[in-house]
Amino acid sequence: MSIVKVCCVGVSVDGFSAGPRQSLENPLGVGGPALMGWAFPTRTMQQKVFGAAGGETGIDDDFAARGFANTGAWILGRNMFGPVRGPWPDDSWRGWWGDNPPYHVPAFVLTHHPRASIEMAGGTSFHFVTDGIHAALERARAAAGTRDVRIGGGVATIRQYLQAGLVDEVHLALAPALLGSGESLLGGIDLTALGYECTEHAGTPSAMHVVLSRRAAASGAPPPSGG
Amino acid sequence: MSIVKVCCVGVSVDGFSAGPRQSLENPLGVGGPALMGWAFPTRTMQQKVFGAAGGETGIDDDFAARGFANTGAWILGRNMFGPVRGPWPDDSWRGWWGDNPPYHVPAFVLTHHPRASIEMAGGTSFHFVTDGIHAALERARAAAGTRDVRIGGGVATIRQYLQAGLVDEVHLALAPALLGSGESLLGGIDLTALGYECTEHAGTPSAMHVVLSRRAAASGAPPPSGG
Repeated sequence: MSIVKVCCVGVSVDGFSAGPRQSLENPLGVGGPALMGWAFPTRTMQQKVFGAAGGETGIDDDFAARGFANTGAWILGRNMFGPVRGPWPDDSWRGWWGDNPPYHVPAFVLTHHPRASIEMAGGTSFHFVTDGIHAALERARAAAGTRDVRIGGGVATIRQYLQAGLVDEVHLALAPALLGSGESLLGGIDLTALGYECTEHAGTPSAMHVVLSRRAAASGAPPPSGG
Repeated sequence: MSIVKVCCVGVSVDGFSAGPRQSLENPLGVGGPALMGWAFPTRTMQQKVFGAAGGETGIDDDFAARGFANTGAWILGRNMFGPVRGPWPDDSWRGWWGDNPPYHVPAFVLTHHPRASIEMAGGTSFHFVTDGIHAALERARAAAGTRDVRIGGGVATIRQYLQAGLVDEVHLALAPALLGSGESLLGGIDLTALGYECTEHAGTPSAMHVVLSRRAAASGAPPPSGG
């Protein structure tokens, strides 16, 4: 079954999924990389993101791999795609990830500013969606076919999709990191009221992994075209 | 060295350390016991709190035991002591824990309503402090001598002591539980700005344990008599 999912999002002790002062040098914000301490050493991240051999296997890697498995399309917020703000000055920014990004499927970038699609190496393509989160989800579902749509982030994008009742499953990694400030992932969002419950967990020395799923009874909430 | 510490506080995926609708039946709020799922099976909790033999050993138990070790006095919020609100109608409420509470040292209860001290079995005594958190800490320090003062909770009490810069060390257990609403432990408190950093962590299948410590450089903040 095709689902809409959020995967591999680190959460700090104080509830932040990105640190303060995001920039070209600190795409995850100051202190943000500590949220992904569980992920960086895994085989999945080493191979898919860093293009390196080796890497650790085990529960942390299993969760990293699940995030990529059966994913047919991604949705990314503008800031996750890059540090450029406002209208695109030119087409030179092509994402943080080099010529061969780790997606290998279509990725839909939310933006207020139109831009032509880009075809990258390895099967990734970036498409710029200017008419909102529901439109982006419709296009991503069509592209994904029978596979899943993964909401890649950042925090603001994930919060919008959660609050609109559009996410079926959320995997979070509670990380041993203190950020003090940054972007709160769940502040002000009552996931219980939205129909979520914790359906799976697995603790490792590096993170407490939790999977939140939306109860079937709650699935009658806003459909993709409802907002 | 005597320190002021917070220990064994469970935190939900969404940042709550107590569930909603606390009552006589739900002293931790609805859903709150899930925050302590890591603790209930431990040998320390089984023996000290439930008076039972056996219980599990290991990292979870080590953290539970640390919370009691070298503790010379406790500070408890009114709601942690009991569900009675407003002026004490009589002396019949003597805590949640029966005749022999698990403290075995003096415990100072914050309240706006005077009440005479109570001597319980096993060395626990309850003292009711009506002149604020700094006064309670002074009395607790005097009672503890060379041992530590543990801020037992609940959430509002811990937050007050954190915001006043009076806590040296905080042990939290990030739990695989979703509460939706309740009492946020750290919402609106910038622990990094207050001088804390994550100095220790240990993940188990039941919780991610983190220890936050205040840097020495930050220890010039409000002294016990400064507020």
